[in-house]
Amino acid sequence: MNTETGVGSYTSEVTELVARLRQGDVRALARAVSLVEDDAASAWQILSCCFSYTGSAMRVGITGSPGAGKSTLVDALARRYRAQQATVGVVAVDPTSPYTGGAILGDRIRMREHEADPGFYLRSMATRGSLGGLARASADVAVVIEASGKERLLIETVGVGQDEIDIVRLADVTVVVLVPGMGDDVQSLKAGIMEIADIFVVNKSDRDGADHVEKEVRAMQSLAAEHGSWIPPVIRTIATTGDGIEELERAVDQFWSWLAQEGRLIARRETHWRARLIDMVRHELLRELRGRGLSDQALANISHQVAAGQQNPYQLVPQLLEPLIRR
Amino acid sequence: MNTETGVGSYTSEVTELVARLRQGDVRALARAVSLVEDDAASAWQILSCCFSYTGSAMRVGITGSPGAGKSTLVDALARRYRAQQATVGVVAVDPTSPYTGGAILGDRIRMREHEADPGFYLRSMATRGSLGGLARASADVAVVIEASGKERLLIETVGVGQDEIDIVRLADVTVVVLVPGMGDDVQSLKAGIMEIADIFVVNKSDRDGADHVEKEVRAMQSLAAEHGSWIPPVIRTIATTGDGIEELERAVDQFWSWLAQEGRLIARRETHWRARLIDMVRHELLRELRGRGLSDQALANISHQVAAGQQNPYQLVPQLLEPLIRR
Repeated sequence: MNTETGVGSYTSEVTELVARLRQGDVRALARAVSLVEDDAASAWQILSCCFSYTGSAMRVGITGSPGAGKSTLVDALARRYRAQQATVGVVAVDPTSPYTGGAILGDRIRMREHEADPGFYLRSMATRGSLGGLARASADVAVVIEASGKERLLIETVGVGQDEIDIVRLADVTVVVLVPGMGDDVQSLKAGIMEIADIFVVNKSDRDGADHVEKEVRAMQSLAAEHGSWIPPVIRTIATTGDGIEELERAVDQFWSWLAQEGRLIARRETHWRARLIDMVRHELLRELRGRGLSDQALANISHQVAAGQQNPYQLVPQLLEPLIRR
Repeated sequence: MNTETGVGSYTSEVTELVARLRQGDVRALARAVSLVEDDAASAWQILSCCFSYTGSAMRVGITGSPGAGKSTLVDALARRYRAQQATVGVVAVDPTSPYTGGAILGDRIRMREHEADPGFYLRSMATRGSLGGLARASADVAVVIEASGKERLLIETVGVGQDEIDIVRLADVTVVVLVPGMGDDVQSLKAGIMEIADIFVVNKSDRDGADHVEKEVRAMQSLAAEHGSWIPPVIRTIATTGDGIEELERAVDQFWSWLAQEGRLIARRETHWRARLIDMVRHELLRELRGRGLSDQALANISHQVAAGQQNPYQLVPQLLEPLIRR
């Protein structure tokens, strides 16, 4: 954390990097994203500098089970937006992918189509260890991509756990993708995922069971709590052929118009920021602590002592914090 | 946090409560568990006091998809242990359950069988909001239950996300429950879950497809990284009839014996504590901050300002921390 960094007093490297990515330099954008994703020393300054250029993009979150066809759907939607000259950024998060290498490979394949297109940028992110941080990293990466001037941000993730729900909460519009054949399993989807849906998509809707999935969603909706005056529509798509993508785009626009009224968009972003700010505070406090005594080696030592029953963690933690906290 | 509380200087309420739960008073145990789960003011003292009585129980984690029959399996295993006079505690975590009420109802039904049995205690826990904390709460509840003298701790959770992987990491022995019919979906199980399995169970193994699931697991195993010299066995069970439970118990014992060698148990617990200690530190720092200026109202105000673009969070967070941190 650079508390000594006042408003606008960024290093010249940061100022230059952000200026370049703002001018459409894709390599500068990729570099800034990497620095932020890796939580580099300059990450905080880059984010602080980029933040001023954010707020106007439409953020669409797309989530669903593995194999639901989210990537194909995101690509199809991105293609539509590009055809209308809207610039597009994609943050693709797949915590079920064990290898970052896989994510990078995926990026290359998905980017090929847009190779010479400066109005499109995609970044994949894979899991990053048990200390969490994927939601934080995704949010930060989205800030940098949006600052590069993208008008539509598509945030794609696998809807399997709390982390992934936190990621999709980045979005203004949340699309939950279902597929035929998961029929009764709609009920076993994380309750949280069903609740955050603004729009349902039944993808691969040419398969048997599309009616059944839609019925299941409708049944859950009638049981569900109020969602303001917006009733999430169910859109049928076949992402591979592009069927239904226009309807999906229209539904997203309709929800966006609805959000624009009565301060709903700000209220939604406020909810997101409430969780994010706490996470940022926690993250920075921990970083501070690690810089002062709680090194990896020190942590390994005390973990060993606790595991061996030689230290009581409930007495140790207050002792660790004592020198850090001003009373 | 009670940094002013030195070693052993607990309030008389805490000392008494812990003494009573140690003597087998089930109501005292239930009360202590509730205080800890609710993160009450006395929670830290209770945990600190209870911790000294932990370390010798065998902790078995049982995870798998919703509907895999985990509860029935846990109940069957618990019954076997009780028949051998080993005392049993169960922590059943289901973050997919939207209502704590459901968890409480589930407790009652599952406890009925053991009503007059002081050697058995079960606690269900449901989801607790987006700020996480379920892994922390489960770990703390396990400490209290173990301190009441339970020799076997069964930790049951739905294996869907990072939170749940963190929960199951509490365990010394991790059992991953699969079912026939999920066939090809074995691959879509969180990679992390497959990696942490010490023992695989194919439950409902009288159904079609048991061979197929087992084959899938074997195929994944041959691709997977080294797991020391332990090759996770695949046990077939029918939890409802008790078929295979004896084999499961034997596999757990074998793994436990293997763990006891060459410092493996301590190494495993050390890994758990490394993540836990960081989480505890983060939690306490945040609690400190909330007690000093970052009230819910203050947080709501600044979240609103950030959402409206009136504040830069990357400049705000360092300012928030400034008065807290001693430099």
